[in-house]
Amino acid sequence: MAEPADLVVEGCTVLVHGQDGTIRFEEDSAVVVRDGAITDVTSAVTAAALPAHERIDARGRLAMPGLINCHTHAPMVALRGIAEDVPVEEWFNDWIWPIESNLTDEVVELGALLACAEMIRGGVTAFADHYFSMDRVADAVARSGLRASLGWAYFSSQGAEGRERSLDFALRRDGDADGRITTTLAPHAPYTVDDADLEATAELAREHGLPVHIHAAENRAQTDSSLERYGRTPVETLHRTGLLDVDLLVAHGTGIVDSDLAVLARATGRIGIATAPKGYLKFGWDTTPIRALSSLGIPVGLATDGAASNNTLDVWESMTLTALVQKSAEKDPRWLTARQALDHATTQSARVAGLGERAGALAPGRRADLILVDLSGPHLRPLHDIAAALVFSARSADVLTTIVDGRVLMRDRRLLTLDVDEIAGELARRLPALTDRGHGRRIQDYGTG
Amino acid sequence: MAEPADLVVEGCTVLVHGQDGTIRFEEDSAVVVRDGAITDVTSAVTAAALPAHERIDARGRLAMPGLINCHTHAPMVALRGIAEDVPVEEWFNDWIWPIESNLTDEVVELGALLACAEMIRGGVTAFADHYFSMDRVADAVARSGLRASLGWAYFSSQGAEGRERSLDFALRRDGDADGRITTTLAPHAPYTVDDADLEATAELAREHGLPVHIHAAENRAQTDSSLERYGRTPVETLHRTGLLDVDLLVAHGTGIVDSDLAVLARATGRIGIATAPKGYLKFGWDTTPIRALSSLGIPVGLATDGAASNNTLDVWESMTLTALVQKSAEKDPRWLTARQALDHATTQSARVAGLGERAGALAPGRRADLILVDLSGPHLRPLHDIAAALVFSARSADVLTTIVDGRVLMRDRRLLTLDVDEIAGELARRLPALTDRGHGRRIQDYGTG
Repeated sequence: MAEPADLVVEGCTVLVHGQDGTIRFEEDSAVVVRDGAITDVTSAVTAAALPAHERIDARGRLAMPGLINCHTHAPMVALRGIAEDVPVEEWFNDWIWPIESNLTDEVVELGALLACAEMIRGGVTAFADHYFSMDRVADAVARSGLRASLGWAYFSSQGAEGRERSLDFALRRDGDADGRITTTLAPHAPYTVDDADLEATAELAREHGLPVHIHAAENRAQTDSSLERYGRTPVETLHRTGLLDVDLLVAHGTGIVDSDLAVLARATGRIGIATAPKGYLKFGWDTTPIRALSSLGIPVGLATDGAASNNTLDVWESMTLTALVQKSAEKDPRWLTARQALDHATTQSARVAGLGERAGALAPGRRADLILVDLSGPHLRPLHDIAAALVFSARSADVLTTIVDGRVLMRDRRLLTLDVDEIAGELARRLPALTDRGHGRRIQDYGTG
Repeated sequence: MAEPADLVVEGCTVLVHGQDGTIRFEEDSAVVVRDGAITDVTSAVTAAALPAHERIDARGRLAMPGLINCHTHAPMVALRGIAEDVPVEEWFNDWIWPIESNLTDEVVELGALLACAEMIRGGVTAFADHYFSMDRVADAVARSGLRASLGWAYFSSQGAEGRERSLDFALRRDGDADGRITTTLAPHAPYTVDDADLEATAELAREHGLPVHIHAAENRAQTDSSLERYGRTPVETLHRTGLLDVDLLVAHGTGIVDSDLAVLARATGRIGIATAPKGYLKFGWDTTPIRALSSLGIPVGLATDGAASNNTLDVWESMTLTALVQKSAEKDPRWLTARQALDHATTQSARVAGLGERAGALAPGRRADLILVDLSGPHLRPLHDIAAALVFSARSADVLTTIVDGRVLMRDRRLLTLDVDEIAGELARRLPALTDRGHGRRIQDYGTG
């Protein structure tokens, strides 16, 4: 007789991916976990006969891969709602960058912890973060139980020190938290990091086998400004500096223009784009051109950006908005179906976050990063189409249970690793010092260069 | 000493409207209810001294007016998710109108009950419905405890009988359910109801003092088709048939064109528009031109349309999407601020639904239709800006308690008047007969005429 499984989640409908990547829903199924990995997805009847240390009765629920937040700045939850209803120049120059000159390690860690709590409650099991004081973010990730890809952001205005700190962090913390932490090099963007620094970054990425996480072509104005100033688009700058020949996570890309597509098609690195549609709507921008990127085979993962622009770290909301906004942008109700949205949320997000073979599907060998979704609410009934129900009716609050590496981080909406009141209380005491803009400094200037 | 209050909701932050309509948030406050109406909004200290039959400790929560769903087809929850990712012609002609030829009174009532359950859980306290077998919808409203404005829909293809049934229903059921039900005349749309019927409807509305609830200019294609076929827009048809001179609730209006604005400006009736942005995104339509309508002083209320197109009856989601989509459509991040969105959700929605002085604000004399929102979730912290938190971070699942006419319909997420499992179970048994399209009939044809 086999050793007992560590965990059996049984009786649920399971979202599984076929060999060709198509999504199916298997009813009365079970997920078997050993040593933090999925060892089997089987029938509930078969699973019932398996000995296990822990069993979760998941009848009436749906098991699916945990959501992956492909681009965020977790600690920025501290600034949630502080700069509303303003254009992006004002948002950066008058609010975010002045306030960020007050950042402390403590605020970053408390913000990251609060963000982790929000993400666990929203069914997120992994996130790609791009911020400062990243050792503290890594500590928060370790404590929360989440998985994360972390990069320490830098601007050329910091001199070589910024780039070196990013590399040092990436080398020191890769593989931390029992392997749940991976790391990236994190230049801010082509408009704040010069070509020499971008080239040096690509070189370091090759030398150390590290992926790069960067903002680029965030909006059309940045592309236009780059064309005017340098005679090339931000994507052409990525190409020219060698960044399209390493593993590259590009945030946003709403300013990707038609001529960029041929450039992206010639990339030799694994390129992925993260889309965070809520903020684009708020700023009045175009959205990520997913249809064109998909035609090139470039994966587009779901993201929330930071809460200072997008207000929540709710990847479920990003999934719903991606489907809605893409249909609207393409003026095509047949485009970006519910099943396509689920593909972005699972397979494509895993690829974008560098977790292609480790997460993004419930299948033997993958890490046991999964969530259980309550299908019993009145807003989900009747259930004519599970995919449509998930994308267009369900919401993050329907996630009951969040599991990472086989460890339950939230059970029936109760967080098991973090205390929100304690964290939010500690953070609140530090807000007056954080949000003071009387000093007149800012960490960087926004011009759409 | 005064008679004890029926209900005191105490310790909460209360969303109140100033004399000029601006929204304020009063902390440590209380709402006092007698005979189903609000008699006072006062400090928690003052309220603590008031005797009351029932008290709700609402510390850490926000009290605000219940949401109003200004246009829906509640029973269509039975078709939630059945016709996804298709253009509107296919949606109507191949799915909805064939299926609706199978409608029975029982399905309508069960659908309406399930819809009421969903709306109560989403913080909706009143809705404007436009459907068939409306006596059964009225019965469901009575049982649920909700408030509703109900109209029995008709097409000219039904002959005079359709219009007469709509009138008969409106006269019989107005004031039902202890006054919670009001009624409207409900011609379907200018492309399915001819001018003679619309004129007769306007005449009946005047004669009986009834409002009219209609779809018009649902999308731009309808406007173009109307111009081509009749040489006038749907809004001009409303004007020409006298419907702009009675109290009129117009659903959608995404096809309202610039030349319509002058026509609307000359309306002598109280005109209101209901916007249901989720479905417009799904169908790839433009959205309701709120900025132009607001400049004319025409109120725009929030709506979900039916769940067969919009998947949920989640007015909170409509509020969030209205803010996001309007910023995007106008390419102006300063437009449709969080406070404006709350104004649409409260004052303007009440006016659109014909509840202008009875609901839409927490103030003495208004009906006690209110909801309590949990502010303690990690996605709402810290709370730099309550308006932004409500519109861009909170979601319907944060509504803990829903109260209509001073009666608690949901307490701490538990429904008190309806049993979802029982209703959904009864409905499920009737779905095979409902969704059978083998007969090849449909109740009406969609052409964008």
